[in-house]
Parts: sequence; C-alpha cells; structure tokens
Amino acid sequence: MAEKDRIEKQFDFIREIDKEKFIGRQTYLSDARRKENDAEHAWHMAVMTILLSEYSNEPIDVLKTVTMLLIHDLVEIDAGDTYAYDEEAKKTKEVRELAAAERIFGLLPEDQGKKFRALWDEFEARETAEAKFAHAMDHVQPLMLNAATEGKSWIEHGVRLSQVLKRNQSTGDGSEELWEYAYENFISPNLEKGRLKKD
Amino acid sequence: MAEKDRIEKQFDFIREIDKEKFIGRQTYLSDARRKENDAEHAWHMAVMTILLSEYSNEPIDVLKTVTMLLIHDLVEIDAGDTYAYDEEAKKTKEVRELAAAERIFGLLPEDQGKKFRALWDEFEARETAEAKFAHAMDHVQPLMLNAATEGKSWIEHGVRLSQVLKRNQSTGDGSEELWEYAYENFISPNLEKGRLKKD
Repeated sequence: MAEKDRIEKQFDFIREIDKEKFIGRQTYLSDARRKENDAEHAWHMAVMTILLSEYSNEPIDVLKTVTMLLIHDLVEIDAGDTYAYDEEAKKTKEVRELAAAERIFGLLPEDQGKKFRALWDEFEARETAEAKFAHAMDHVQPLMLNAATEGKSWIEHGVRLSQVLKRNQSTGDGSEELWEYAYENFISPNLEKGRLKKD
Repeated sequence: MAEKDRIEKQFDFIREIDKEKFIGRQTYLSDARRKENDAEHAWHMAVMTILLSEYSNEPIDVLKTVTMLLIHDLVEIDAGDTYAYDEEAKKTKEVRELAAAERIFGLLPEDQGKKFRALWDEFEARETAEAKFAHAMDHVQPLMLNAATEGKSWIEHGVRLSQVLKRNQSTGDGSEELWEYAYENFISPNLEKGRLKKD
C-alpha cells in the first residue's frame, strides 16, 4: 500500500505540471508568430545547459542544473508568469510564488518534494555555481529569441537598454563568456538598429 | 578564432532547435483543448525520468536518459511527427529521420554533434538500459495524457487495444512496474468505457 501511494503521488504531480504548458511568456518563438510557454522555455534551456556548461565560470553539476531549470517555473502554474520588465507585478511575485511552491511540490512524495523545493530555493538564492549558471541560461535564452525575431517583444514593450542590463546584471556571474557573446550578438546589434531604446 | 567558431555553431544549433516547438503531436494536453508539441513532450518526459528512474528494471544514468529524451525528437524538425498508429507514414520514417539527423546534429561542433547523434542512435536501437527506460517514458507519457483527456485522441482516431499493446510491447522492457501501473490506470478504465476499441 505504501508503494502504491508513492506512485500515485508521483503521477498526480506529473499530471498537474502539464499545466506549465499553458503558462505564456512574453518572448516570441523564432518564427515571430506566437509566444513561448514555460515548458518550451524550460526544454530549450535544458538542452542549452548540456551544450554550454563548458562556459560556466565555475564547474557545475549538469544534471542538477538541468533539473533546476526543468522545474524552476512550475510555481507559475499558480502564480503566473511575471514579465521581467513589469515592476508592479514583481512586487508581489515572491509571496505568490512561495505559496505555489508549497502546493505544487507538496503533491510529491515527501523526499522528492523536498528535493525539488530545495532546488527551487537554491535557484532563487543565486548563490551556488549551478544557480548562477541556471540564471545565465534563463537570461540568455530570451535574448537569443528576441534577437532572432528582430527585437519584436522589445519593440512591443518599448524596452530600454538599462532594463535589459539590470535584468542581466547577474548573467556574467554564471558565465562571463556567454554574457559577452550575448551582449555582442544579441543586444548590441539591436541597440544600433533602434529595436532596443537607448537611455 | 577557433573558439568563436565553436560558440557560433552551438548557437546556430540552439536557434535551429527552436523549431521543435512547432512540431505537433497527436496527443491532447490535459485540458483537452490543444495538442502537445515535441518540445513540451520532451520537457515533460525529462521531469518524469528524474522522478520515476527508481522504477527502471535496470539502474540507469539519469542525465544520459534525460539528454536522450530532450533531443530524441529533433529529427522531426525535418521529418515531421509520425503518428504512432499511421502505418503508411511509418514505412518512410527511418529514411526521413536519418537525413534529418545528419543535417541537424551536423550543425554542432563535431564532438558535440557526434555525442548527440550517438545518443539518438542509442535511443533508436532500444538496447541499453537508458534507451529502454526512455522508450517507456515516451509511451507512458501519452498514455497518461490520453487517460487525463478521457481518451480524446484515441476516440478521434478510432484506436484499438491491439494497436496500443503493439506500440507498448517494449514499455515493460524499461519498467515492468510502470507498464503495469499504466495498464491498470490509463488503458484498462478507458477500454471498459469504450474509449479504446476492443479487438
């Protein structure tokens, strides 16, 4: 009976997280036709981590970083996606996401719920090498898509360079090399073409 | 210069695989409103693997299995999704997917392209513990979603039990326990309710 409970809790969680596929983000996909959802974003960053971990400032545990990225947006099933440049919504983000973490990770068997919750907390704290690299992925991936769509989302929201730089102030903490590459290839050309506003 | 080439190849690949988000599958999401795409499917199976590896018949390398699942459908960017119960399309599937693997993994730096290609070949060969478990995930995940949507996709396609059993003949090779659970919880109740046709 104990084992039956465990597998049922696991599938309750697995079914519940299907809802991450309904959580929209502000970034357009590379065809510039529709916006990305959280599950697609997480998948993309997981593959990126496997390919780009060699650029991490510090050595990282790749499975741990991938797991962190696969689950870090699950709280948005309850809390919704908070746009990186929406200052009002960001004020209530922490409270909304903490309640969501309690409920969603609480669906799992206790050991697995604690493990995922600890990974989410670690991501949010941005202190370990894995958390820093995961944040770098979380920032570089939308920069890349924004550049691929000729700044469509930046233009729609009238985003300024200072906002992008503030958002990315910790990207170099994960990887100096990726931050430099992203600045030169994704930010700078779009600033020159006026798709990102100069301050 | 050598290093610049490497990172550019990596981002060429990372940008290219965004197209996996456009590749539709036949399975409905849990709200039964729209069908899943390959990137969402891969994300879901990666999380499932992390949670369910304890049920593998043989011990598995979790990062290897997760990586295999994250990339195994990339060939569909060129070859398209072949529905599991479309016998005509399945005849040309292998040729279409081999050409796609050459092109898509060929975008990467040679070492990483070879690594991903080897993982894809390993998945297709279904011989290692990781490949067997990955196939179990690839089969159980849509069974779960079909059950969650009261068999919507099965009903639309008039799917018969024998087709599901044939598709799942290797699921137990990855995990006897998950196959038993899936049969009892996802297949059997839908057979009783006529959502899956008896043969």
